[in-house]
Amino acid sequence: MIETGRVTVPTDVDVIDATIEIINRWKADAIRDCDGTDMPEELRKMDIKQYATYYTTRKDNAWAKANPDEIQQMYLMSDFVTARDTELKIQIMQHFYSDQLKPNIKDNHRWWEVIDRTTDEVVTNWDYDEETMEVIIHETIPYHAYTVSFLAFVIWDPVHMYNALTNDWKDEEHQMTYDVRQPKTQKYVLDKFRKFCEERDDVDVVRFTTFFHQFTLQFDEFAREKFVDWFGYSASVSPYILEQFEKEVGYPFRAEYIINKGFNNSTFCVPTKEYRDFMDFQQREVSKLAKKFVDICHEYGKEAMMFLGDHWIGTEPFGKYFESIGLDAVVGSVGSGTTLRLISDIKGVKYTEGRFLPYFFPDVFHENGDPLKEAKVNWVTARRAILRSPVDRIGYGGYLKLALDFPEFIDYIEKVCDEFRTLYSHVNQQVPHNLLKVGVINSWGELRRWGTHLVHHAIWYKQIYSYTGVMEALSGFPFDVRFISFDDIRKDPSILEDMDVVMNIGSAYTSFSGGAEFDETIITALRRYVDQGGGFIGVGEPTAINRNGKYFTLYDVLGVDKELGFTMHTDKYNWEVHPNHFITEQLEHEDWGECINNVYALPGTEILAEKDLHVNLAVNEYGKGRGVYMNGLPFSFENVRLLYRAIFFAAHKEDEMKHWYSENYNVDVNVYPSTNSFCVVNNTYEPQTTTIYKGDGSSFEVELAECEIQWFEI
Amino acid sequence: MIETGRVTVPTDVDVIDATIEIINRWKADAIRDCDGTDMPEELRKMDIKQYATYYTTRKDNAWAKANPDEIQQMYLMSDFVTARDTELKIQIMQHFYSDQLKPNIKDNHRWWEVIDRTTDEVVTNWDYDEETMEVIIHETIPYHAYTVSFLAFVIWDPVHMYNALTNDWKDEEHQMTYDVRQPKTQKYVLDKFRKFCEERDDVDVVRFTTFFHQFTLQFDEFAREKFVDWFGYSASVSPYILEQFEKEVGYPFRAEYIINKGFNNSTFCVPTKEYRDFMDFQQREVSKLAKKFVDICHEYGKEAMMFLGDHWIGTEPFGKYFESIGLDAVVGSVGSGTTLRLISDIKGVKYTEGRFLPYFFPDVFHENGDPLKEAKVNWVTARRAILRSPVDRIGYGGYLKLALDFPEFIDYIEKVCDEFRTLYSHVNQQVPHNLLKVGVINSWGELRRWGTHLVHHAIWYKQIYSYTGVMEALSGFPFDVRFISFDDIRKDPSILEDMDVVMNIGSAYTSFSGGAEFDETIITALRRYVDQGGGFIGVGEPTAINRNGKYFTLYDVLGVDKELGFTMHTDKYNWEVHPNHFITEQLEHEDWGECINNVYALPGTEILAEKDLHVNLAVNEYGKGRGVYMNGLPFSFENVRLLYRAIFFAAHKEDEMKHWYSENYNVDVNVYPSTNSFCVVNNTYEPQTTTIYKGDGSSFEVELAECEIQWFEI
Ligand SMILES: [Mg+2]
Ligand SMILES: [Mg+2]
Ligand SMILES: [Mg+2]
Repeated sequence: MIETGRVTVPTDVDVIDATIEIINRWKADAIRDCDGTDMPEELRKMDIKQYATYYTTRKDNAWAKANPDEIQQMYLMSDFVTARDTELKIQIMQHFYSDQLKPNIKDNHRWWEVIDRTTDEVVTNWDYDEETMEVIIHETIPYHAYTVSFLAFVIWDPVHMYNALTNDWKDEEHQMTYDVRQPKTQKYVLDKFRKFCEERDDVDVVRFTTFFHQFTLQFDEFAREKFVDWFGYSASVSPYILEQFEKEVGYPFRAEYIINKGFNNSTFCVPTKEYRDFMDFQQREVSKLAKKFVDICHEYGKEAMMFLGDHWIGTEPFGKYFESIGLDAVVGSVGSGTTLRLISDIKGVKYTEGRFLPYFFPDVFHENGDPLKEAKVNWVTARRAILRSPVDRIGYGGYLKLALDFPEFIDYIEKVCDEFRTLYSHVNQQVPHNLLKVGVINSWGELRRWGTHLVHHAIWYKQIYSYTGVMEALSGFPFDVRFISFDDIRKDPSILEDMDVVMNIGSAYTSFSGGAEFDETIITALRRYVDQGGGFIGVGEPTAINRNGKYFTLYDVLGVDKELGFTMHTDKYNWEVHPNHFITEQLEHEDWGECINNVYALPGTEILAEKDLHVNLAVNEYGKGRGVYMNGLPFSFENVRLLYRAIFFAAHKEDEMKHWYSENYNVDVNVYPSTNSFCVVNNTYEPQTTTIYKGDGSSFEVELAECEIQWFEI
Repeated sequence: MIETGRVTVPTDVDVIDATIEIINRWKADAIRDCDGTDMPEELRKMDIKQYATYYTTRKDNAWAKANPDEIQQMYLMSDFVTARDTELKIQIMQHFYSDQLKPNIKDNHRWWEVIDRTTDEVVTNWDYDEETMEVIIHETIPYHAYTVSFLAFVIWDPVHMYNALTNDWKDEEHQMTYDVRQPKTQKYVLDKFRKFCEERDDVDVVRFTTFFHQFTLQFDEFAREKFVDWFGYSASVSPYILEQFEKEVGYPFRAEYIINKGFNNSTFCVPTKEYRDFMDFQQREVSKLAKKFVDICHEYGKEAMMFLGDHWIGTEPFGKYFESIGLDAVVGSVGSGTTLRLISDIKGVKYTEGRFLPYFFPDVFHENGDPLKEAKVNWVTARRAILRSPVDRIGYGGYLKLALDFPEFIDYIEKVCDEFRTLYSHVNQQVPHNLLKVGVINSWGELRRWGTHLVHHAIWYKQIYSYTGVMEALSGFPFDVRFISFDDIRKDPSILEDMDVVMNIGSAYTSFSGGAEFDETIITALRRYVDQGGGFIGVGEPTAINRNGKYFTLYDVLGVDKELGFTMHTDKYNWEVHPNHFITEQLEHEDWGECINNVYALPGTEILAEKDLHVNLAVNEYGKGRGVYMNGLPFSFENVRLLYRAIFFAAHKEDEMKHWYSENYNVDVNVYPSTNSFCVVNNTYEPQTTTIYKGDGSSFEVELAECEIQWFEI
């Protein structure tokens, strides 16, 4: 049993003694600095693993100012502005934060794009007035709407800006960014990094925060977040990069490949070929360059750790170039079970580390804050997923000084550290026992493993919570969860055969539902798969595209369709709700999330839940297989169980469900054959009792304290 | 003041004395027979206007049986059936009622169409097995879905069938239909009609029930309604007709022009060019032939009256050929204010008649029925619209005998008849005073005046009630309401200039919202109209089509858009609800109908009502004009007032609202300059008091009994 270590503590110059006390209490084996903190000299000599954050793209304004052409750039789109006459002036920076972004006017007729959004035509007859920052479009057509897509320099790093605003840093010089992809800066930064490695013998682990390109993050004129996409490539551009890209793909680059009608190609858009080309190019080039930094680390005997966030664009840990970077470790912020697995499922590194919440920032650690509660929720939520796929280490970030004022918080984290080490002793990097194989089908597949339906890391959005609840449930299930792209199926439909159940989850036309991805190959492959015995679960508006008389392309598999108004004329007689069903046996409090509305059952489909002429849950026999439709599934343990039962039902394996199973759905069971152990874990903040079924079907009773985890031999 | 007449009473052979008593009490001036009743010989001699129902297409099974090729036909579509192998058998009549419909297998490879609905391709390699009634499709592609569109004979008239089932007629021979468009039958039916006119000197008015083509009405294998479209042309087809059509338009007919992917071209589909061609052809041909019957009526000194329903297809009273029929009158069923105006707004006839509900059928007139309540609701609801555009007569239908058992009902109708005559004395066929001009924009324009969002006459559907509430409100407003098609605007955008407010009401992509109809011309015309001072009100998913980065095409005018998931990444800060606004001044109980969900306000838009991050009501200044967005508006007098205020607001005429105005929204004011009168009408079943504002802004108090209407001099 591991008794110490696997824990990282943040520190600062003003908390040396306290750091040592915390290291001892939490039995930590690593310390780290953070953005805005410094590693104290005294601690640098301690016999403990030392992490040093390293920023490749900022914290050197002298360089940035001396090389203004090599400041990082971002594609921005102006407002949609409707012309009222035959000339239109668009203030391109209106509603952007001018402290963050500054137009790059060089070769603007090559890199900018003015588009008539009423006709989707590119407009070329325009000028730019530097003084007023207006694009003047000539010969506009009255009452057409126009936009300007343009390049802007990122003159204040968005993360530094966020940290400065959140912590109210006064008189802090705005950290500018520079583009490490460009040869001059690249050489400078690599040399500087080598020097850092040379000088900082005390550093064991270089924690890259991060590499070269920030995810898309724009602020508005009031310095509020204006646009955010945690997966966005908009800020990974510069003429230097784009010219390389053009050479490689053999066609000219267009701003619209990034802007994509104003969506900035969010991860919810079905990716175009050109955007895929660009992402692939960037991933390869970023990985190549990142490797140079990692190689230097290794040359100096240091480990290279990447922070999965901020400037992570292009690294895509589940993409095809990631392993080639040669990183030793990845660390990331844990906001949920799903985001935990964004980190813990990464392959090709020696270890992963979860940075747990809350971050020691004054937005939580203040007089009226409740960091203890946040820590509990964060830990218990993530633990479900850790028990399936553990990170190898845990850690915290921010200002330790702030946390020291909350002794109950410090006590709680001490317990968390012990609990983590115990469970890691059982789980380690082995694969726990999986009962089923479940595939999630969308446009991204494994590239965005566990990254589905995320806008801004683990942030709640009205349009996603009904789907993220499904992903969160999956992140803690004893299943082998695969993410399958439509292209994967096109390449080899037989990959479906291996799956007990496949799922399609999302809103119509998004990359997660699929829209036009449902072509002949996909439709026939999925119908064949279910007909021959597979299970298909659709959530929300699965397989939806308004085409050929139906909305849900797999209406026949799901047994439901959505009424858009064109088929009201066909009478719908199937509204009977079947109250006794395997799936709903434990369901008491229905919560389907945002109502999709107007979903109706086809004849022969069995409705399990319905409200106001809208079907929330239905099942359908299809050949030897089964289809299940669900409106949505916000996260709750009752809904987690509902999905669990639905998956066993869809898989035709109802009889196998009560193996390694807890009758009480607030309690999970996880099994680790490699250590001959299993655990029973209470996911709630109240005591629970339950009956546990073992693998052989035998059962026993357990009583658990709040949040308790108990370990048993198999 | 008119004291007697303008009322039609149904009769039958078994109620002669009672009929005379009712005629006296209701001061009726006309009697009529009905489907399944006979005009008694005794009454035929009475000095009272005599209507005789006349059926051109049925009640002559001998003819139908002798001419089986000339039985009417309907295009049907089989189920969508998914192939599991390379041959697929589709039982085409599965889920149709075989007593109603029988496949017409003649030349089936010419007139039927087998379609691969997965690829939308026509399939020609198939046979039909007469015995099993199966289409056998060869070389099917496994897991593609197929349909068969086919012609079927209508061997039981759907209305006769409905009447027979509703009245439980036993041993009644199923009335077959025959196609009066075909020369042999046409000659036979015209001769027969001439003979009828010759023989029935007692008949003053021939009430055609109706002409030649039934609206689409199909029954399923349990004799339940399977498909209904009150506007549907599916049952107006035969090879004879289609060959004529082909000659006229110069391109081959396809079943798909009718079936339209399984929608049977419902009125909610944006009509294709081919469907428009077909409708136009049918309207012209039906009108030509109907004129022959009308001419015969006139030859014999009889009036010709058309029932607006049943076999009304092709007559389209607001279409361009209707007046050429030369009808004297139209009678129709009144289910609401909207459907009242479907009749009363008809031009080119001498008079219109409303057949009020309930119909004297045993489904209402039975021991536990409440026909009095139905009659009250029907009358009070319709009266709002009658006061704007009156029918010239009222009447009832069914079996008088059944009504006689409900003396309170008889008493109430007596009062209704008196009230109708009084109001008709004031209103007559003059145009009442209109305060504003309002245009409703959709794909149909005046052709479907007041016929928007109707599936089956006045029947409730979950998908329409939030929109029919708007139409119902409009049907009683003192406004000149125009119905404007997108084509009207394309032809002459200046027609908008005449409008105070235009509205676009409906679900995305339907013919009422418009979908792809929002082309460059429409977009610029509407933006220009509002920019120059017009008002635009959008309800539901107005102007919606997912294109060029926006969903609501006129997002800039409406100030709102709907989040489909692609722009979640853009922060939305405008959620403040403005509590004090002209539009919402009298709103206490919000009821927006079916939630559209995820509508958000753009910056600068003023939200007036919002729930759970969804905007229900918002206003936006746009140049000199205004945009208003509403989620939906189920009918209630509070909502009626909300719309009234919204229209005055959108028109920039808030100051003019309190002229001919009741402070209490349960009370309407209508003004009739031609008779120098105005009325104040209580639309509720409780007493009301209110302040009435006259045209000069002066006001007075009124107390009204339940449902009361009071008349004043201007
Ligand atoms: Mg791992
Ligand atoms: Mg009239
Ligand atoms: Mg505005």
